Amino acid sequence: MNSFGKLFRISIFGESHGESAGIVIDGCPAGIPLNHSDFSADFSRRKSGAKGTTPRREADIPRIMSGVFNRHTTGAPIMIMFENSNTRSGDYRKLQHIPRPGHADFTANQKFGGFQDYRGGGHFSGRLTLGLVAAGVVAKKIIVPMQVKGTILEVGGSSDVEAAIDRAVEQQDSIGGIVECRIKEVPVALGEPFFDSVEAAMSHMVFSIPAIKGIEFGSGFQAAKMKGSEHNDSFVATDGTTETNYAGGINGGITNGNEILFRVAVKPTSSTHKTQHTMNMKSGKMEDLFIEGRHDTCIALRVPVVVEAAAAIVMADFMLQSQQIKRIHKPKTE
Amino acid sequence: MNSFGKLFRISIFGESHGESAGIVIDGCPAGIPLNHSDFSADFSRRKSGAKGTTPRREADIPRIMSGVFNRHTTGAPIMIMFENSNTRSGDYRKLQHIPRPGHADFTANQKFGGFQDYRGGGHFSGRLTLGLVAAGVVAKKIIVPMQVKGTILEVGGSSDVEAAIDRAVEQQDSIGGIVECRIKEVPVALGEPFFDSVEAAMSHMVFSIPAIKGIEFGSGFQAAKMKGSEHNDSFVATDGTTETNYAGGINGGITNGNEILFRVAVKPTSSTHKTQHTMNMKSGKMEDLFIEGRHDTCIALRVPVVVEAAAAIVMADFMLQSQQIKRIHKPKTE
Amino acid sequence: MNSFGKLFRISIFGESHGESAGIVIDGCPAGIPLNHSDFSADFSRRKSGAKGTTPRREADIPRIMSGVFNRHTTGAPIMIMFENSNTRSGDYRKLQHIPRPGHADFTANQKFGGFQDYRGGGHFSGRLTLGLVAAGVVAKKIIVPMQVKGTILEVGGSSDVEAAIDRAVEQQDSIGGIVECRIKEVPVALGEPFFDSVEAAMSHMVFSIPAIKGIEFGSGFQAAKMKGSEHNDSFVATDGTTETNYAGGINGGITNGNEILFRVAVKPTSSTHKTQHTMNMKSGKMEDLFIEGRHDTCIALRVPVVVEAAAAIVMADFMLQSQQIKRIHKPKTE
Amino acid sequence: MNSFGKLFRISIFGESHGESAGIVIDGCPAGIPLNHSDFSADFSRRKSGAKGTTPRREADIPRIMSGVFNRHTTGAPIMIMFENSNTRSGDYRKLQHIPRPGHADFTANQKFGGFQDYRGGGHFSGRLTLGLVAAGVVAKKIIVPMQVKGTILEVGGSSDVEAAIDRAVEQQDSIGGIVECRIKEVPVALGEPFFDSVEAAMSHMVFSIPAIKGIEFGSGFQAAKMKGSEHNDSFVATDGTTETNYAGGINGGITNGNEILFRVAVKPTSSTHKTQHTMNMKSGKMEDLFIEGRHDTCIALRVPVVVEAAAAIVMADFMLQSQQIKRIHKPKTE
Repeated sequence: MNSFGKLFRISIFGESHGESAGIVIDGCPAGIPLNHSDFSADFSRRKSGAKGTTPRREADIPRIMSGVFNRHTTGAPIMIMFENSNTRSGDYRKLQHIPRPGHADFTANQKFGGFQDYRGGGHFSGRLTLGLVAAGVVAKKIIVPMQVKGTILEVGGSSDVEAAIDRAVEQQDSIGGIVECRIKEVPVALGEPFFDSVEAAMSHMVFSIPAIKGIEFGSGFQAAKMKGSEHNDSFVATDGTTETNYAGGINGGITNGNEILFRVAVKPTSSTHKTQHTMNMKSGKMEDLFIEGRHDTCIALRVPVVVEAAAAIVMADFMLQSQQIKRIHKPKTE
Repeated sequence: MNSFGKLFRISIFGESHGESAGIVIDGCPAGIPLNHSDFSADFSRRKSGAKGTTPRREADIPRIMSGVFNRHTTGAPIMIMFENSNTRSGDYRKLQHIPRPGHADFTANQKFGGFQDYRGGGHFSGRLTLGLVAAGVVAKKIIVPMQVKGTILEVGGSSDVEAAIDRAVEQQDSIGGIVECRIKEVPVALGEPFFDSVEAAMSHMVFSIPAIKGIEFGSGFQAAKMKGSEHNDSFVATDGTTETNYAGGINGGITNGNEILFRVAVKPTSSTHKTQHTMNMKSGKMEDLFIEGRHDTCIALRVPVVVEAAAAIVMADFMLQSQQIKRIHKPKTE
Repeated sequence: MNSFGKLFRISIFGESHGESAGIVIDGCPAGIPLNHSDFSADFSRRKSGAKGTTPRREADIPRIMSGVFNRHTTGAPIMIMFENSNTRSGDYRKLQHIPRPGHADFTANQKFGGFQDYRGGGHFSGRLTLGLVAAGVVAKKIIVPMQVKGTILEVGGSSDVEAAIDRAVEQQDSIGGIVECRIKEVPVALGEPFFDSVEAAMSHMVFSIPAIKGIEFGSGFQAAKMKGSEHNDSFVATDGTTETNYAGGINGGITNGNEILFRVAVKPTSSTHKTQHTMNMKSGKMEDLFIEGRHDTCIALRVPVVVEAAAAIVMADFMLQSQQIKRIHKPKTE
Repeated sequence: MNSFGKLFRISIFGESHGESAGIVIDGCPAGIPLNHSDFSADFSRRKSGAKGTTPRREADIPRIMSGVFNRHTTGAPIMIMFENSNTRSGDYRKLQHIPRPGHADFTANQKFGGFQDYRGGGHFSGRLTLGLVAAGVVAKKIIVPMQVKGTILEVGGSSDVEAAIDRAVEQQDSIGGIVECRIKEVPVALGEPFFDSVEAAMSHMVFSIPAIKGIEFGSGFQAAKMKGSEHNDSFVATDGTTETNYAGGINGGITNGNEILFRVAVKPTSSTHKTQHTMNMKSGKMEDLFIEGRHDTCIALRVPVVVEAAAAIVMADFMLQSQQIKRIHKPKTE
């Protein structure tokens, strides 16, 4: 299903080349100031256009269709919509029966029997992460004083990001990357044992972002190579502050008050300038495919703000569940 | 909360040293043969006693308290309970106010205000994975012909598992490991875009297992270092079979019919023979802690069957949602 | 929260006088023909304008913003939106602090701290049932061959509906009514014991409709006065057909194949031409209130199509859960 | 499914004549005093043995198997189990293929393909309400200072309950009844608009109790015969107190601080001393059925405490959602 969350609940909808993409945010406390301009900073971080991203620029103008009144949230569901325009659907018709390797074209066709909107990935498009980022903007206002920060750690195996991008552009290939997310000023005792652990909810949400292949918390995969005598985080203060943070801020699924820290692996963009082996689902024959057009060299560059949004959404839900924020929000500046 | 799943739904309960641990399995189709002996093989794989695991042996005798009649599932909730016995609670009283680094003692105390059952980790104990394994046994019967297989890939950074264990035992230290899980004969089109993607549900479930620090699907973190031209899985047949399997059997959150493949990182056991820095939550002073007793050298050795169970539970839920199995199960051999 | 359903899931949003009202329908099978014109018949039954309803006419033009492609459902979420226009918000400003008795003004203010959109009931407005009716139109296509039929049984205590309306108009008062709903050609074995019984789900959904005060299934409140010897429905055929239908088509929460039958009580419209006692929430003083304007004499007249929609939505969810319909819909007539 | 609730969540399991019946209560705040003796008063109200109830007496001894430590709740799931004993299963074998009219025998057989535990109603038995009452005992401790009170209003159409029972016993017939539930000292602003309205959640829960045929809030079905001018509840104080309470304490799905008031209709016990028409599901032929043994003359007599429990469970969930109680409960008397 296309919904996530218990008390702070989001539902996404839309397609890349359909009428719109958007999101419904339910359970947002009343009284939070919210304007169109609040979205600009995060939207521009997600936007394409920079080196390493596709030159095609979308208009990301949010229409707030419900849940906001007198420039504050009302407590009712907030629907934010992005109407699509200038979409050249014609380009995609020839791909209708020819699934692009690495994309969801084949699985979508199998699942929805050919009725899916196949244009530009349809409902599977990265365009839908715009709704996530919008919900993240709202969530970030809820989880104050927590701060969420996503950054690029490396692309194509190199921490010299700019050089790696230049090289990939030159080679007309795409490259993957690793994105790190840190959450500061985390209250103690968010999350639950077992199925609602912070890691469980966070990974659930993060794997909803297209192109993510892995997630690790704190020491992560490195933990598998460590000894217990070095991995334990010694306490250095009675508020739970630890000397190291191999736990990534979480013990037994519950926040321990230290920084939450996780990293995600982003695969290289699937569309490249290379002929690929695929099939024609209508004729039932194998075919070769060359995809024209210009694509993101490194989609990972656009992922940090999406991961931030995902993290903020998860923490907002935990904050509401833990009763550390109220259903009515009375901003200090009012 | 302590529940997971949409149509195949599990709820766990219990404590390490309380009356019992157990699980309620709701949504299991009626008509599946189920006996006590069905649990033996998987329970023995989870059991301690082998080299590298704690010598303390628990009695893992399942009591099926509901949902089974005439040796078949009835369609009503199946409650399976493990009564605890011979638990020496006295050992734990002195740890009541002294949280063990790397454990959930501190966070549990903060969350539950000191009311938690602190004996042996209480509700956070690995003993509760016994219920998961029990549910996995049931789930494996549902997802036929899918087969789930969890194996140890490496411990302490080495694929020579036995030697690594010997070395760690000698050093009186604990070590982590990596567990791989493969699911064969997967139907196409299980899972959903976005929040109910196979990766989202699987990671959600897997991070409910104590000691897991990371998960990656297919190419995983290696994808971050790869080029698009090598990462795409070319189709080699019109049924969706691909030449490589960097996708780990999943595109756009939906199974593509190839093997599902994921790996998880398991941290080293937190309890070791080393004095650690911690606090006394009652006195509010810092303290040193030396934990006596014998512990698992490598808890990762006991994880494969738990990961298998987790994977089977997730796939059972997807199978029911996808309507690829019926609510009434009529075994061929009946 | 503003969502309902397990596999066929709806989320509503919107306000009476805000930008829009609408609904997101998730889990709808792919391949169902859907056009704007499909909504006309049910929308016109919900519309005001007839005798006994308010003369203010709204434009109920559905915009299908996602989930439909080539005039068929795609399997992705269907977002249907109604943009509001010509709303005279000014009328409502003086009511901001003066809750209308019988309305949600007071409770909304208490819950949302004054941040709620108070214009015309805001999110609590009957206008939001337009989204329910839209979802009902989709649901009715899914549950074929089931047919849902809602009718007015009585208004103001009389089964001569027209006369009762005339009398109430003359008295410048409002009246309540009873709506009956029948579902024909119901498959056996929908629903679950206990918390997902058909009655539980249906009543949950029906009480989401504003102005409903009661619901009864089959014999309903009359059952309380009956003897067991007369209340039991004797079987007359081995397919489960019964001689009487006091059960209302449901035993143990599960459909028995006979007609599902329930009735709901609708209260009289709260706004009438009578001065009422209320308060000023700002000044903290008691006040009298006279509400101008023209209102529905009998809102019950507009309820049958909403109850039908509610019933169809519930049955669609049960049908999907019971696997009696497929996630890919291949209409015979296509 | 067999679970209910968002933050205060219950899952029931068990059968009438199987190993056990019971409940798992998840989300209960830590720190609530809980002993076996706390259950006695409510269990005895549910018990049979009084005039008008079956003379068969069950042993209702709760075993608290998890979630309680040092006589207080721990915050972990509370599993309470009732082991069945002295069940004469033999009596039921001959009913295996012969569904009792008015019971769930036919629908259970259709749903579960004959694999259901048919003994004494199996999972559909009223015995499972014992778990609900147990959860109600816990819930009542959470919702302090709210008080829930269920009472018999009438049986067999008469408010002289004793005389009506005598008459029915004499006639060897069973009779139905009406149960009223009142909740006092209700906080304002519990509940949500639409799908999580108090009426929606309460009716959902109440219809999970076997034998309930209808529910009405406040004015209920009488509202259908009333005029708006008399139905509106005038405010008499700025805290929201109203002169009348036709709303039943709820406006727009949200509590208004006045008493919550609802009534439920209970059907007469299905088993009576009368030959009934039914079928043999194995032979496929129609048959007559005479059910021996002694049964409840009026099951409604045992329903008030079950309805109270249902109401307390619903209110506990709303209280947790509304953040009016804390996850850690520090009793004043400790």
